[in-house]
Amino acid sequence: MARHFTASDVRDTYERIGGRVRRTPLDDSLYLSDDDHRYRFKLESQQLGRSFKIRGALNVLSQLEPSQLRRGVGTVSTGNHAIAVAYAAKELGIENCVAIVPFGTARSKLDRMRLYGARVMTMGSTYDEALTLGLNYIDCNELFYVDPGASDPRVYTGQGTIGYEIALLHPSVDTIVAPVGSGGLITGIAVGARAIKPSMRIVGVQTAACPSLYQSIKDNVCYTSYPVTGETICDAVVGGAGKLAFEMLPNLIDEWVVVEEAAIRSAWRYMVVKEQTLIEGGSAMVVAAVREYPELVGGSNVALVISGGNADGVMLGRVLNEQTE
Amino acid sequence: MARHFTASDVRDTYERIGGRVRRTPLDDSLYLSDDDHRYRFKLESQQLGRSFKIRGALNVLSQLEPSQLRRGVGTVSTGNHAIAVAYAAKELGIENCVAIVPFGTARSKLDRMRLYGARVMTMGSTYDEALTLGLNYIDCNELFYVDPGASDPRVYTGQGTIGYEIALLHPSVDTIVAPVGSGGLITGIAVGARAIKPSMRIVGVQTAACPSLYQSIKDNVCYTSYPVTGETICDAVVGGAGKLAFEMLPNLIDEWVVVEEAAIRSAWRYMVVKEQTLIEGGSAMVVAAVREYPELVGGSNVALVISGGNADGVMLGRVLNEQTE
Repeated sequence: MARHFTASDVRDTYERIGGRVRRTPLDDSLYLSDDDHRYRFKLESQQLGRSFKIRGALNVLSQLEPSQLRRGVGTVSTGNHAIAVAYAAKELGIENCVAIVPFGTARSKLDRMRLYGARVMTMGSTYDEALTLGLNYIDCNELFYVDPGASDPRVYTGQGTIGYEIALLHPSVDTIVAPVGSGGLITGIAVGARAIKPSMRIVGVQTAACPSLYQSIKDNVCYTSYPVTGETICDAVVGGAGKLAFEMLPNLIDEWVVVEEAAIRSAWRYMVVKEQTLIEGGSAMVVAAVREYPELVGGSNVALVISGGNADGVMLGRVLNEQTE
Repeated sequence: MARHFTASDVRDTYERIGGRVRRTPLDDSLYLSDDDHRYRFKLESQQLGRSFKIRGALNVLSQLEPSQLRRGVGTVSTGNHAIAVAYAAKELGIENCVAIVPFGTARSKLDRMRLYGARVMTMGSTYDEALTLGLNYIDCNELFYVDPGASDPRVYTGQGTIGYEIALLHPSVDTIVAPVGSGGLITGIAVGARAIKPSMRIVGVQTAACPSLYQSIKDNVCYTSYPVTGETICDAVVGGAGKLAFEMLPNLIDEWVVVEEAAIRSAWRYMVVKEQTLIEGGSAMVVAAVREYPELVGGSNVALVISGGNADGVMLGRVLNEQTE
C-alpha cells in the first residue's frame, strides 16, 4: 500500500513549490453563472508548460539528490506529464531529461517537450507499451524515473497545491470540480483544499469513454489499466486508475459525474468560441458536467479546474467545424 | 499640443498600478525561434479583462476625485477599452459605468462589459458616430469621460507599463514589437521600456487595411480619422492616429512594418492551431510581421506584444476554416 498523505504534506509542498509555479487566475465564466451559482475557471491551462502537471513534477525533482540530478531523469507519458518534467528539469538545471512517448502523441506536445530541452523517444503504440519499454530504457541508463503519479504521494501533493491555492486565495469557493484520469489531481486537490476549508465539496468528472477510477471504486477493484471505448478528445486524462487515488478517494469525493464524449466536444467548442478560452479536450469535461448535470455538480460558488491548455490543433479544428451552436 | 510624458511618468504609473494588474507571462514561441533569434509572446491576452487596456484605464480611474467617482464614468469604444474601463470601475467600486459602443460590436465584448457591471448602450454605426453621440450623452449626464487614449498621457503611461515590465523582468530582451492602432500602446511602451533599457529597439506594426499612424507620420499630417480598406480582423486596432502618438512617436520608433490582412489571418490561425494561444485578430499583426518580414523586425531577443485575447468566436471560426497549413 502506497503511503497516504495529509493536509500538512500539501501545505509543506506549497511552501516548497508555491513560489516557482504560476498562481493561475480564477476567471469568471461569461455565461455559465446565474443568480444562484457562480462558476469560475481555475486556469491551469495558463500554468508553466500549460498544464497542472508542473506542480507534481517540480515537487518531485526539487527533492532529488545531487547524484540523481547529475545522472538525469526520464519519464513515460502521453504528453502533459512529460512536458512538465521537461520544464521542471530545465528550471532546476537538470541537463539530461528523456521523455518517452507512445506513437501517435500529438505533434504539438512533442514540440513543447523539445522546447523545454527534453530528448524525446517514441516507443510502443499505446501508453502501456511505452511504459514497459520506457521503464526498461530508464533502468538501463540509470535515470531517475519520474512517476506520472499513480503511486507517488509527492506528485499527488504537488497537484494538490491547486486545491490549497483555490481555498487560500478564494475563501468563498464552496465546490471544486476536477477532471479525473488516474486520480492524482482530484485526490491531491481534495486534501489540499480541505487543509484550509474542511467543508469544501469535491466533484470528480470522468469521460464515459474511459471511466476507470469511477468503475474501480464502484467495483472495489483497482483497474490500473482500462480500455478506451470509441474515440475520445480526453487523451490527456484517460488510462488506468492510480493506486493511491483508489485507496484515498472514496473518503474524499462528494460526487461523481460521468459525461459522454459528445457533451465534452460541445463543451470544448463552447470554451473556445464563447468563453474565448483555449483549453485541451480533456479539460472540457468539467464544463460538460456543469452544462449537462448542474444539480449533480451542486454548490453555489464553484471552481472548475481547467487542467491544461495543450490543445491539439488538428483535433481542435475538427471539433470546431462539427457544428455551430 | 497635448502634454508629453517621460520615463519617470511611466515609472510613477507602474508604482501606482503595478500591484493591481497581472504581470503577464512572456512565453517562448514554439516555432518562431532559431539559433540566432528568440521570440517570446508578452501575453496581455491573459491580462485582466483580456487586454492591455486595463493598465491605462486603472491609471486614469484611480486618480479621480471622490465627486467624480460618485457621479460615475462613461466611455466610447469598439470593445477592449470599454471592457477595461468596466473592469477598472468595478475594481475601484465605481457603481455607475456606461459603455457606449457602435452597432456591430462583437457580442462577446458586450457580454464581457456586462459581466464587469457596465451599462452598455449602442449608438451609431461607426466608432466616429458613436463618439459624437456618446460624448453628448456623457456630457449631459455629467459622467467622467474616459478617453481611449488619443490625447490623455495617463492612458499612454498606463499602457507603457508593459514596456517597463518587460525591460524590468527580462533584461535580455533587446527588441519589442507592438501592434499600432491610435498609437497609445507603442508610444507608452517605447518610453516605458527605455526608462530601464535606453537601447531597447521598438518596432511598430500596422495593418495595410488602416495604416493611419504610419501614413500620418510619413505625410506629417495627423489623420485623426482614417478609412478602413476592405475587410479587417484587426477591429480592435483600427482607427485614426492619436495626437500624442503622432507628436512623440517619430523620435521613439526604430522601424515600421505594414502587414497585409491575408498575412494577419494566416498568423492568427498559426497562433491558435500551432502555438495553442488564443489571441484576438489584431494581436496577430505582430506575429505576421515576424513571419513575413523578419529582417525588418530585426533584433535577437524579441518580445512580441500580444495585445488582447477577446477573440470573436464567429470570426475565429471563419478564419480557422479558411485553409489548413
